[in-house]
Amino acid sequence: MVEYSKFFSELTRRFRASDVRELLKMTEGRRIISFAGGLPDPRVFPKTEIGEIANMVARELGEKALQYSPTPGVGEFRGVLKGFLERSRVRIGEGDEIVVTSGSQEALFLASMALVSPGDVVLIEEPGYLAAINVFKALGARLVPVRVDDEGLDPEHLAEVLRMLDGEGVKPKLVYTNPTSNNPSGTTMPIDRRREVLELASRYDLLVFEDDPYSFFTFDDSVRFEHLKTMDKEGRVVYFGTFSKILTPGLRLGWVAGPSEIVSRVELVKQIVDLHTSTLDQYIAMEAIRRGVVERVIEKAKILYRKKRDLMLSALDETMSDFANWTRPIGGFFIFLRISGGIDMRSLFPKAVERGVAYVPGDAFYVTPGAGRNTARLSYSFNREEEIFEGVRLLSEVIKEGLASSGKA
Amino acid sequence: MVEYSKFFSELTRRFRASDVRELLKMTEGRRIISFAGGLPDPRVFPKTEIGEIANMVARELGEKALQYSPTPGVGEFRGVLKGFLERSRVRIGEGDEIVVTSGSQEALFLASMALVSPGDVVLIEEPGYLAAINVFKALGARLVPVRVDDEGLDPEHLAEVLRMLDGEGVKPKLVYTNPTSNNPSGTTMPIDRRREVLELASRYDLLVFEDDPYSFFTFDDSVRFEHLKTMDKEGRVVYFGTFSKILTPGLRLGWVAGPSEIVSRVELVKQIVDLHTSTLDQYIAMEAIRRGVVERVIEKAKILYRKKRDLMLSALDETMSDFANWTRPIGGFFIFLRISGGIDMRSLFPKAVERGVAYVPGDAFYVTPGAGRNTARLSYSFNREEEIFEGVRLLSEVIKEGLASSGKA
Repeated sequence: MVEYSKFFSELTRRFRASDVRELLKMTEGRRIISFAGGLPDPRVFPKTEIGEIANMVARELGEKALQYSPTPGVGEFRGVLKGFLERSRVRIGEGDEIVVTSGSQEALFLASMALVSPGDVVLIEEPGYLAAINVFKALGARLVPVRVDDEGLDPEHLAEVLRMLDGEGVKPKLVYTNPTSNNPSGTTMPIDRRREVLELASRYDLLVFEDDPYSFFTFDDSVRFEHLKTMDKEGRVVYFGTFSKILTPGLRLGWVAGPSEIVSRVELVKQIVDLHTSTLDQYIAMEAIRRGVVERVIEKAKILYRKKRDLMLSALDETMSDFANWTRPIGGFFIFLRISGGIDMRSLFPKAVERGVAYVPGDAFYVTPGAGRNTARLSYSFNREEEIFEGVRLLSEVIKEGLASSGKA
Repeated sequence: MVEYSKFFSELTRRFRASDVRELLKMTEGRRIISFAGGLPDPRVFPKTEIGEIANMVARELGEKALQYSPTPGVGEFRGVLKGFLERSRVRIGEGDEIVVTSGSQEALFLASMALVSPGDVVLIEEPGYLAAINVFKALGARLVPVRVDDEGLDPEHLAEVLRMLDGEGVKPKLVYTNPTSNNPSGTTMPIDRRREVLELASRYDLLVFEDDPYSFFTFDDSVRFEHLKTMDKEGRVVYFGTFSKILTPGLRLGWVAGPSEIVSRVELVKQIVDLHTSTLDQYIAMEAIRRGVVERVIEKAKILYRKKRDLMLSALDETMSDFANWTRPIGGFFIFLRISGGIDMRSLFPKAVERGVAYVPGDAFYVTPGAGRNTARLSYSFNREEEIFEGVRLLSEVIKEGLASSGKA
């Protein structure tokens, strides 16, 4: 009776349903080994401890823990979180502020909403984090990709892009990076690259979004790193984090930390978006930090995910070294696969699903149309150990057949 | 070193820090009887039951309850919530969908973001809900006020406003109303008014936002009402609700229900805003509905808030009937006070605070510049019973002095 589409906002009109989501619907209801998602392994969830803590918090502190709470977060929790970050070598300076959010997705959205207007130029890693790309697109940003190689964001390419934009008289607002155990590429930027990025940010007067879900449980010291936030001397870095991987995603807690001038605007936006984050969840996380539960989760995560990464790397070695190469993550959940021959991992997807294995076609992480067709993101975080080898083996067969039928194997 | 303001988005530039917030800072650290906030009384919080439920849910269902969950909400919870709404006489039809949100504030924000572009005309109650006004303003809407009298939104004035806009060739998108136990006015729209509003929505092809935090614990049957959502035959009503008043605000759970064409856009927006709402909080609320905890909270709330309302009404009768009138809420948290003489409740505020009592100056709820200066919103929800009379007495003295010094008493 009502014709609804005329009511939609400009922002809504910019949206399309994610095509990756559509693709992944193929896997529903099938018994399949999926390397597509990025879920943590529930074996690291401290179920008993969270149950105990929640029970105590609701009974004994319920008058506060079940009540409305301040927009930037429960004051006591922000203090405890700051302490945790500092012990993790993330420097939160005098001029900084923290706002607690409903996951780091909300942190990223709020900060982007505070800073990005339609038409603003945002520099983004390519391949880059899909959910960040979607936030910037929804807000109408013009996305300019910066190359990611095996050492993460390439500062030389960043410099080139900035020179080019400068030549066109275009002033970008910010560069988005996930420098440690990158999603999707599995890369970690060495310190010298980070320094160069900060120098470029200073020279071209940019802000830097440092998205950091994984640095707390790196399990391999082959790349030395420091947080951009810690290296930042000028107050250009806005730092995003989450409890999803170091406690549980179900609590839906994240944060943004950075210069108070910026973060106070984030707080204003949060006031209209959702007023505040779950008070109960904040009290639970606060107590989980205090009791050392978060540290124990981190220790468990390091052991578990290192084992799974090793399993996937050796499966890849054994089955794909003739026709592919891949990254070697020091943490996080993802390995990025590049097929040497001409192959389209998106059009191969239905065949892979039929054979019993799934992944995310890598082109989803590229802003440049048509780029990344020969790539895929594989997650080793959720699957049982025994499935990892079998999944990689199935995938290698599908790819080999794909290469053969395209006459290039 | 960095000059930050140049980085702010257009949206951020539209913001000012809420002047009510600034005003209320005066009350901080003072021993004061505050009728300003709208907090529930923690005595209704089922602390023990929530503790028990959280403990069970984390331990026994932790693999799911502590994991990521779907953007529109945990499927099982949405089913339980739908059942609860239907038992509460809110009709969720075949063509409807529900999305679970982080409080009704987020529901309102997401739906507005899906529908409202800068320059769009939104019709809003005057006096109206401040947080809704702020959402619409932030999104750049043109707000057109519609009069609220003692029976809530006045359909005659709505008709007049719509005729006028039609004459100017302006097509409004939606009308926002909180028809039952209104915040701030404490009014409830009778059924015939609701019918007229729906007829006007149909005639002028508008959507209707029905914000409904309070209908579940009305405690006085002097006004018969039905939900606009239930009366809606054309699929024009988008319905917002919250667990803040029927369980606890600390869980931060709300919902939006309405035509699937609209609500599926809300889901897309939620995907970029915060991905999903706290999984743990959803499992807790689900179990609280199943165990009858929510119904017990509602019964307790009815008794407690009726008593507090009665106390405030008799205190007003006793102290202010010579120079003021006020609304008589059948539910909710608020009484709206109108002073007959010429008085400015905003400039009176510092004196009231000095005397030991606070309120929200009513002009904060008006869109029309300068309107509502002689009004105030009083909340009876949070204060202890014994404070209510004393607070009203103090306020009456301050107002009497104000009237006297303005020579109009």
